[in-house]
Amino acid sequence: MTEPLVTLEDVEAAAERLGGVVKRTPVDTSRTFAERCGADSVHLKLESLQRTGSFKIRGASNRIAQLDDDELEHGIVAASGGNHAQGVASAAHAHGADATIVMPEVTPMAKIEATRGYGAEVVVHGEVYQESYERAIAIAEERGATFVHPFNDRAVIAGQGTVGLEMVEAVPDVDTVVVAIGGGGLVSGIATAVKARTDARVVGVQTEGCAHMSESLESGEVYERDSIDTITEGIAASRTEEYTFRHVREHVDEVVNVTDGDVTAAMALLAERAKLVTESAGAVALAALLGDYLDVEGETVAVPVCGANIDLTQFADYAKIGLAQLSRYRTIRLTVDDWPGALGSVAAAVEETGATVDEISRLPPRSGLDPAKTELGVSVEGSGPDHLERVAAALDERSDVNLVD
Amino acid sequence: MTEPLVTLEDVEAAAERLGGVVKRTPVDTSRTFAERCGADSVHLKLESLQRTGSFKIRGASNRIAQLDDDELEHGIVAASGGNHAQGVASAAHAHGADATIVMPEVTPMAKIEATRGYGAEVVVHGEVYQESYERAIAIAEERGATFVHPFNDRAVIAGQGTVGLEMVEAVPDVDTVVVAIGGGGLVSGIATAVKARTDARVVGVQTEGCAHMSESLESGEVYERDSIDTITEGIAASRTEEYTFRHVREHVDEVVNVTDGDVTAAMALLAERAKLVTESAGAVALAALLGDYLDVEGETVAVPVCGANIDLTQFADYAKIGLAQLSRYRTIRLTVDDWPGALGSVAAAVEETGATVDEISRLPPRSGLDPAKTELGVSVEGSGPDHLERVAAALDERSDVNLVD
Repeated sequence: MTEPLVTLEDVEAAAERLGGVVKRTPVDTSRTFAERCGADSVHLKLESLQRTGSFKIRGASNRIAQLDDDELEHGIVAASGGNHAQGVASAAHAHGADATIVMPEVTPMAKIEATRGYGAEVVVHGEVYQESYERAIAIAEERGATFVHPFNDRAVIAGQGTVGLEMVEAVPDVDTVVVAIGGGGLVSGIATAVKARTDARVVGVQTEGCAHMSESLESGEVYERDSIDTITEGIAASRTEEYTFRHVREHVDEVVNVTDGDVTAAMALLAERAKLVTESAGAVALAALLGDYLDVEGETVAVPVCGANIDLTQFADYAKIGLAQLSRYRTIRLTVDDWPGALGSVAAAVEETGATVDEISRLPPRSGLDPAKTELGVSVEGSGPDHLERVAAALDERSDVNLVD
Repeated sequence: MTEPLVTLEDVEAAAERLGGVVKRTPVDTSRTFAERCGADSVHLKLESLQRTGSFKIRGASNRIAQLDDDELEHGIVAASGGNHAQGVASAAHAHGADATIVMPEVTPMAKIEATRGYGAEVVVHGEVYQESYERAIAIAEERGATFVHPFNDRAVIAGQGTVGLEMVEAVPDVDTVVVAIGGGGLVSGIATAVKARTDARVVGVQTEGCAHMSESLESGEVYERDSIDTITEGIAASRTEEYTFRHVREHVDEVVNVTDGDVTAAMALLAERAKLVTESAGAVALAALLGDYLDVEGETVAVPVCGANIDLTQFADYAKIGLAQLSRYRTIRLTVDDWPGALGSVAAAVEETGATVDEISRLPPRSGLDPAKTELGVSVEGSGPDHLERVAAALDERSDVNLVD
């Protein structure tokens, strides 16, 4: 017999179970983003402010809350290098169960420590996720423990669906919901709730370097990628699974694929305008909206900002890349006559245009460089492409300066 | 006759007037911050998500909402290089009045454009705020326009007080409220509401480089600083004013002064743990809590995160300085034998300890440097002081490396 799909009632029951463990996260409304994409209004569900920094604790909690005492005593096992690890660890802790999380060898120390910080035992094993996954299954079998799949699970999907439930309660007149897809658990849960409660369209978003769902939808069969190449490690799954896929086929209207560049631009705008720190995967859905992949003219749009687990230094780097993507940050390479005041006068020339010099550095010698010249990399922040063009033109105008490229 | 202090009724009336213009911002609860300062719970009022990026729109709206048609027609004038400028511009726009904002010459282009973006006319005038202020007063007199003071105004204080009203409605059992002080408008309004509705203690916080309120409280008279030296430009006032000061004397229990370093550490933790972008002034109150300036053992604490208007590149820099302040980021200077694989082997040695190399650069030659050596600056992120010590020790152990300093 085929397992039935998750229903609205499952999601509502999940919502009842999550109290005390999971926050009801706020919904913020952004005029700026509405103006940028032509929507009537854009509502951000701030799941980035959720406990453990992502929505994953919802699905994990809903799964673990339904275990009996004997099952809880035998412990919980999961495999993940990211948000699911922290979600399961925290949910298990809240329900008084021991958790063992198998994390791939490439997992940054900070994520290992965060997972341990929620009281879990961490086993570092596997060059790729599949190896961690297999070890986790083996540990679960050996101990009689419960394995919590990151997305291909009825209770997990229902738990993630509570994001959708809260979203339509806050924005009942929503026309379009835009959701990031990794394995497909979040979009399946949200779409279940949204489609039952509203007439809204549900759009899934992946990054090109890990896109698999549009291929699966096209062929009607689960498509598996050979390789993954994206900065959005939080959604970097190579495939969905059968049970999850049935939800996507049933409820998701469309899947679009954005670029990593779109994602950094969305991260920068989320930081600058919505004042939010997000991880790359947390900005993927908004990236589709701001990158003009969707026609939402005059619509009421809701977007979960689904995660924010990122190293601060990494975040700082992506934010600058995002500004560059938005043509507001640029490193201008130039040669300048090598006189003592050269650096200072170049910096002053930039600042006269109203732009800010973020960094100025002497580049190492290269073949073909006139020995009477110095080569500089001048990193400049301006208000937009026209402004940065004016900066470059002001430098180019000088008789002692030549732009490179 | 002395003007009476703002009352709870004034604040409640302000709350009625702000609907549609001002957001009711969410209150988030942080277990991490509670653990760090020993409180039972810490509640952050996310005024950083307010329209215009700070609470200033509340006071400005409450003031402008009470003008009659004739007054609105004669326009609004203010002087500010920061959040008050955007708050007044946006509130005036919402009430259909023209706004003229005088901004000091040092105001960054981004803030000028943001203010223009709300429909205001911007007059750039004055080397220091006092000169901008005088010009604004002159413009207001000339045009018969209404000048909106940033803090020394009954309606402005009552408007800012709505932050406190919403805070005590969300956290009715609050024991201590911690609020940043610039001129004193926010703390006066919040304290008015908090003291009327609860028995909570109200603590004001300034940074050492612009502290004036503790001196004023001690002497009982408004104290004016000669100079200002702080990164917290959002609260960098040199004095309070008489009417505002009467509120502080009446309602504020204590004022503490933190360092700029404390502020960057709080900004880094707000970004990393609370997932929030804040400006430096927006992190000042939390800095007092996390910097151990207050005994809040077992208490319920509420803190407005009051502003988030900051350039992304500036934010990225402060976040890294904050990590350094928390002993989690450090640039290690060292000399290494100048062989072709030197840089790579140093980087590898750092990474073997589990730390991350953020940047590695060859430093320019200096007197006394052995010509057979290269000097490097290695910027490293680790999990804490012990970890960074282990990194330095691992480098120091190598026969080809000498640490500098």
